[in-house]
Amino acid sequence: MNELDLDTPAVVVDMARLEQNVARMAAVAGKAGVRLRPHAKTHKSAAVARLQIDAGAAGLTVAKLGEAEAFADAGFDDFFIAYPTVGQDKARRLLALSERARLIVGVDSEEGARTLAEVFSAADRRLDVRIEVDVGLNRTGVGPDAALALARSLARLPGLRLQGLFTHAGQAYAEPSPDRVAAVGRSEGETLARCAEALRADGFDIEDVSVGSTPTAVEAMSVAGVTECRPGTYVFNDATQVALGVCGPEQCALTVLATVASVPAPDRAVVDAGTKTLTSEAIRSRTDTFGLLTDGRGRLVRLTEEHGVVEPSPNARFRVGERVRILPSHVCPVVNLHDRLTGVRDGHVECALDVTARGRVR
Amino acid sequence: MNELDLDTPAVVVDMARLEQNVARMAAVAGKAGVRLRPHAKTHKSAAVARLQIDAGAAGLTVAKLGEAEAFADAGFDDFFIAYPTVGQDKARRLLALSERARLIVGVDSEEGARTLAEVFSAADRRLDVRIEVDVGLNRTGVGPDAALALARSLARLPGLRLQGLFTHAGQAYAEPSPDRVAAVGRSEGETLARCAEALRADGFDIEDVSVGSTPTAVEAMSVAGVTECRPGTYVFNDATQVALGVCGPEQCALTVLATVASVPAPDRAVVDAGTKTLTSEAIRSRTDTFGLLTDGRGRLVRLTEEHGVVEPSPNARFRVGERVRILPSHVCPVVNLHDRLTGVRDGHVECALDVTARGRVR
Repeated sequence: MNELDLDTPAVVVDMARLEQNVARMAAVAGKAGVRLRPHAKTHKSAAVARLQIDAGAAGLTVAKLGEAEAFADAGFDDFFIAYPTVGQDKARRLLALSERARLIVGVDSEEGARTLAEVFSAADRRLDVRIEVDVGLNRTGVGPDAALALARSLARLPGLRLQGLFTHAGQAYAEPSPDRVAAVGRSEGETLARCAEALRADGFDIEDVSVGSTPTAVEAMSVAGVTECRPGTYVFNDATQVALGVCGPEQCALTVLATVASVPAPDRAVVDAGTKTLTSEAIRSRTDTFGLLTDGRGRLVRLTEEHGVVEPSPNARFRVGERVRILPSHVCPVVNLHDRLTGVRDGHVECALDVTARGRVR
Repeated sequence: MNELDLDTPAVVVDMARLEQNVARMAAVAGKAGVRLRPHAKTHKSAAVARLQIDAGAAGLTVAKLGEAEAFADAGFDDFFIAYPTVGQDKARRLLALSERARLIVGVDSEEGARTLAEVFSAADRRLDVRIEVDVGLNRTGVGPDAALALARSLARLPGLRLQGLFTHAGQAYAEPSPDRVAAVGRSEGETLARCAEALRADGFDIEDVSVGSTPTAVEAMSVAGVTECRPGTYVFNDATQVALGVCGPEQCALTVLATVASVPAPDRAVVDAGTKTLTSEAIRSRTDTFGLLTDGRGRLVRLTEEHGVVEPSPNARFRVGERVRILPSHVCPVVNLHDRLTGVRDGHVECALDVTARGRVR
């Protein structure tokens, strides 16, 4: 079946580009001598995770415990949950999951870690944890100077073993140029590596120094002392990565096929993909644009739930019923809206990619 | 089970408030002598649709054919697809669905309608359609002055019957006051009713004059000549409706329970609900706020995929592990992220509400 004959809206993955993206990042990590533990939140798909593992990934990163459970059900068995996971319910689920998978879990507070420690020590088990260090995103994590104090607190809790440190330099997305993005990546790696040295000097056995994010990955992996990297978006890329200069349009593997449902005026075409297909996220650094037509004929300037309003490029004309292909602003939440992606090769439908962990926010 | 013991994030529906919202809108419609055909895109839930039908709704409105198919599978049999539905695939699916449900479908162009006409006339069947009239949203639909010409075009197509007119005055969401919103509603009803009269004067049998949207519903239903109304959000309401003055906080039936995962600084708490739980939509007219804590202790000022950053209100303090309750900005796309909502009454879990048509964007 020709991909243009798919009923719309359809989320389409170019399998050749996906495979190239997977291979390219694996090669960068291999050359740097860094383990790749890709973030599966981007694709949430067992089939894509399998490609990553087959290309040498050391395991998967996930954001939520529920994602790890879904991937464990699909046969994967080595997870880093890069999230401060707290509470009794989560601790008991972690304990159950640890029976069938190797787990490492993020922590950024003694209060949060204590419940995990209680549940694991009561079961006479030990959970590997990593301290989240904030290197400038101002989201979760302790500052680099506070990591040692938290490490000492964790050492007093039975049932936990401090395995490493991790950070996510998401602030790179606010930078306007590839050079600035690269500088964030270097700083990310250097700060975390220094932090690890300080803990080692205090007697802690810090095994992994884990950095992450697609824009900063290449630079951060080049820093001595970094042992692991967790990029996610690189498998598909998106309009934000292109705008950042992180990749070219030809490296974008995921697009949304849509149909022009209405051409109410010469300056407006409306496609059958709105926020329930594309999310309401704009391209970072280009807040008036919610997706790009890949043929350059227009951009999405307004979305409602099931309508995407295209502003045509000069001289572009649209007709009702024609297909258009959209490069989304941010691919990760787009995938999470859909139960299934369609894998294509050379314009022909090859396979369905189930979104194994779709909606697993708990 | 106490609702506060639910694992988080959890989307919680207060069943008493939901029932009151359903009854209140049904009463307004009954008093106005207008048929209510609520928009099911808000809840996408067979259980909620059943409440609406039991309260007297004349059928369901949906945005996409796939939603109608999902509700038909759940036993419903009367749909208005308020969307310019185009293309061979959709036409064939409409024909199949028409075997088991009464259908009315939106059209706003002859090109779009022609395929539907061909498929239905080839099967010796007739499809009821309504012309979408644009009364100021500038999305889909023909202008009021162009409706007559489109009606004449449709009359030349076999297989279609022009059943009515419809509009959606979504521009009300841009208005800063209840009075201005009400004025949009009056204008919506009056413009569409006048348009219907013009078509009737030309010999068309315009059965339904259908308006919609929660903010404009009450005012638009009061206009003579309006026969049907299609509000959706009213069943749950949300922070945008409260900001518009359309409802009070005590009429909001859907909230998201979340857990404080991290308190990295006195001016910041981070909860386990981000854009994959709440979407990235801000409150309309308050673009720096992505949700409100219902107890007034803070607001969500930044979301990433699984993190919600709360800015505490003056003197508010948060601790890791505590539960918070969030009123979302816009409820419709929130529901579409989740497979199941949890119905509660008096703080206790009563039922699960399956999101029957989740993700049905085709």
